[in-house]
Amino acid sequence: MVAGGLVTEERPELIGVPGRPSPLVRPRSDSAVVLALEASVDSLAAALVGFGGDVHASVRVERPRAHLAADEIVADLAELAAPLLARVSGSMSLIGVGVAVVAIVRRTDGLVRLAPNLGWHEVPLARMLTGALDVSVPLTVANDADLGVLAEHRRGAARDVDDAVYIAGEVGVGGGVLVDGRPLRGADGYAGEIGHIPVNPDGRPCRCGSYGCWETEVGERALLSASGRPADGGPDEVGRLLQDAESGDERALAALRQVGEWLGVGIAAIVNVFNPRVVILGSLFDRIYPYVITSVEDRLAARGLAASREHVRVVPAALGGESVLLGAAEQAFEPFLEDPAAWLAPRVGEVHLASA
Amino acid sequence: MVAGGLVTEERPELIGVPGRPSPLVRPRSDSAVVLALEASVDSLAAALVGFGGDVHASVRVERPRAHLAADEIVADLAELAAPLLARVSGSMSLIGVGVAVVAIVRRTDGLVRLAPNLGWHEVPLARMLTGALDVSVPLTVANDADLGVLAEHRRGAARDVDDAVYIAGEVGVGGGVLVDGRPLRGADGYAGEIGHIPVNPDGRPCRCGSYGCWETEVGERALLSASGRPADGGPDEVGRLLQDAESGDERALAALRQVGEWLGVGIAAIVNVFNPRVVILGSLFDRIYPYVITSVEDRLAARGLAASREHVRVVPAALGGESVLLGAAEQAFEPFLEDPAAWLAPRVGEVHLASA
Repeated sequence: MVAGGLVTEERPELIGVPGRPSPLVRPRSDSAVVLALEASVDSLAAALVGFGGDVHASVRVERPRAHLAADEIVADLAELAAPLLARVSGSMSLIGVGVAVVAIVRRTDGLVRLAPNLGWHEVPLARMLTGALDVSVPLTVANDADLGVLAEHRRGAARDVDDAVYIAGEVGVGGGVLVDGRPLRGADGYAGEIGHIPVNPDGRPCRCGSYGCWETEVGERALLSASGRPADGGPDEVGRLLQDAESGDERALAALRQVGEWLGVGIAAIVNVFNPRVVILGSLFDRIYPYVITSVEDRLAARGLAASREHVRVVPAALGGESVLLGAAEQAFEPFLEDPAAWLAPRVGEVHLASA
Repeated sequence: MVAGGLVTEERPELIGVPGRPSPLVRPRSDSAVVLALEASVDSLAAALVGFGGDVHASVRVERPRAHLAADEIVADLAELAAPLLARVSGSMSLIGVGVAVVAIVRRTDGLVRLAPNLGWHEVPLARMLTGALDVSVPLTVANDADLGVLAEHRRGAARDVDDAVYIAGEVGVGGGVLVDGRPLRGADGYAGEIGHIPVNPDGRPCRCGSYGCWETEVGERALLSASGRPADGGPDEVGRLLQDAESGDERALAALRQVGEWLGVGIAAIVNVFNPRVVILGSLFDRIYPYVITSVEDRLAARGLAASREHVRVVPAALGGESVLLGAAEQAFEPFLEDPAAWLAPRVGEVHLASA
C-alpha cells in the first residue's frame, strides 16, 4: 500500500495521449523506456513511457496538501514506481528516470532549493530517489513547469513553434519557457519563476517572502478568496466554484473575471519579455480557461506591446493534466536523443558508450 | 555639415575601449572592418571598428529630442558615416554594417515597428539606410539594448558569464538578454522589453499605450519628476540632479532612492524570470549607479527569490556609454564569425562564398 497518508485511489489506466514519434531519431527497436515521476501539490504520479511518448502504464494517486517529509514522498514515489519497473523485462530496456517536482531545482545535482507547497527547503531529491528506486540509470530532477513546456513542445500545443511559455499553477504559479527551441534554464536552473514577478505594490504577502507577486493575484487561493470561499479549499472547492459559475452565479463569475484580468496582466509581462508564439495555460489555468480567456485577452490587448502580441496565441494545455509527467519522460530521454547509438548498442556490464 | 537640426559637436576622438581580441577566430589580416551606427535618444554615432573591437575612428553628435522624420535621421547617419567609409582603403575591407536603434525592431528585415522616443512607427530602417549608405555589404538593424548585452558579453561586464541582462534606459527602458550564451530574440525579435513589465496597477500612463509599466517608475522622466524638476529636462537636468545629490540635497537624494527602489523591484522580476549571473546597468542607470545601488540591492533582497539572487551581481556597464555602438559592430561581424574563410578569401566582383 502507498504509505504516508495518501488516498490510495489508484487509476492505473493508460493515458490516451495524442502524439507522434519525435522526428529526430528512431530507435532500432521499441525497447527503450523511461520511468517518469511527478510530485505535485495534489497528487503523485508515475508512468512507464516508451520512445515517442507512448505511455505503457501509468498511475496517479491523490495526496493531501499536508506537508510531508521528503523521505515519505520519496518512499511513496518508489512504491508507485515498483510495479511499473517490474514490467521492464525481456526486450525492454530502462534507460533513464525523469522526475518533476513543484519546486525550484538546481539542475546540476537535482537539489530542491525551495518547494513552498511541499514545505521543503534544500532537499537532495535526486540523491534520495536514486537510492530509493535502486536503479542504475541516469535520474534527472526538474521543475514541473519546465517539463510541462517540454512535453507541449514535443507533442502538444507548442509543437510547431520554438518560442513558448507554459504556465503551471495551483497554489503556486510557475513558468516553463522555451526560447528558440531550447529550454530557458538560467545560470543555475532557476529561471522561469514568473509567479514571482512583482505586479502589485499593495499586494498580499507571498510564500516566497516577498509580497504582491503575480501568484498572489492569480493562484488558487486568490481565486477562492475572491469568490468568498475558503482560500485553502483546494481543487474540490475550485470544482464547486466552476459549477456555480456554470449555473450563472454572479459572485463566482466575478471572481473568475478578476483572476482573468490579473492573469492577463501577467501574460502581458510574459509577452513583452519573451515575445512568444504561444502561451499555454496548464493545471488550474487549464481548468478555468473558458471562464477567463475573454478577460485575459482584454488585459493582454491593453497591457501588451502591439508588436509582441501580434502573433501570440493563449491556449489551454493540449496534454491536459499530463503535460508535466510526460515532460519528465521527455527529459529522461534526453541523453538517448543526444547519442542514441551508445544506448542501443549491446552493453557489456557497466561499460557504456555515451559521450557525456 | 550634419543636417536636420543637429548640434554638430563632433568628438571624433578614438574611444579607448578596454578589450582583447575574441578568442573564437582570428582573421588572417587586420583588414576586416565594419561600420557601426547608433540612433539613440540624445545622440547619433558612427564608428569604424576592426576585428576584436579595435575602434579605428568614431564620431558622436548630440541631437535634440524633437521627433525627426526617419529620412532626416537616415541622412544624418549617412553623413556621419561618409568620412569613416572614406578611410576604408588599401588593405582594409568593409564586411558589414551594424545599426543600433532605440526601437522595437523586426530582425528579419530591420523594420522598426515602434520607436516612441523617435516618434517612428513602421519605418523600414534597414532598407532606407542600405540605400543612403550606398554600400553592398550586409546591413543589420537591432534594438539598442540587445546590442548592449552583446558588447558587454564579448568584452565587458558579462565577459565570463552566459546568462546576463543589460538594462538600457533614458526616457524609455529596454533590456538585452543573454540566455545560455545566446541572445534572447523571441519569435519576431521583440523580446526583452522589460521596460513594459506592468509593475504598478495605479501607475502613470506609458508611451506604449499601457500604464504602470516599469519604465514609468524608473525612466528619466520619473526620476526628474520625483525631484521636482521638469520631467522633460533631459540628460542635462539629470546632470544637475546628480550635482545636487553630490552636495547632499535631500530632495535629490530622495528621488534617487525612490527610483532605486523601483529599479530594485524590476530587477527582482528580472532575476526571478531569468536567473542571470549579472545584471548590467547601462546609460541612465550607469550614470546614477552610485546613488541607487544600495536601494536596488535592498529591494532585490526583499523581492527576489533567495535561490535566484544568490549569485547575481548588479554592476554598471563596463563599456560605459559605448556598449550599444560597440554591440552594433559585434553584430556586423556575425556573418564573418560564422564563416571567416568565405570573407577573407579573395573576392572577384560580386561573387562571394558566404554560405548563408
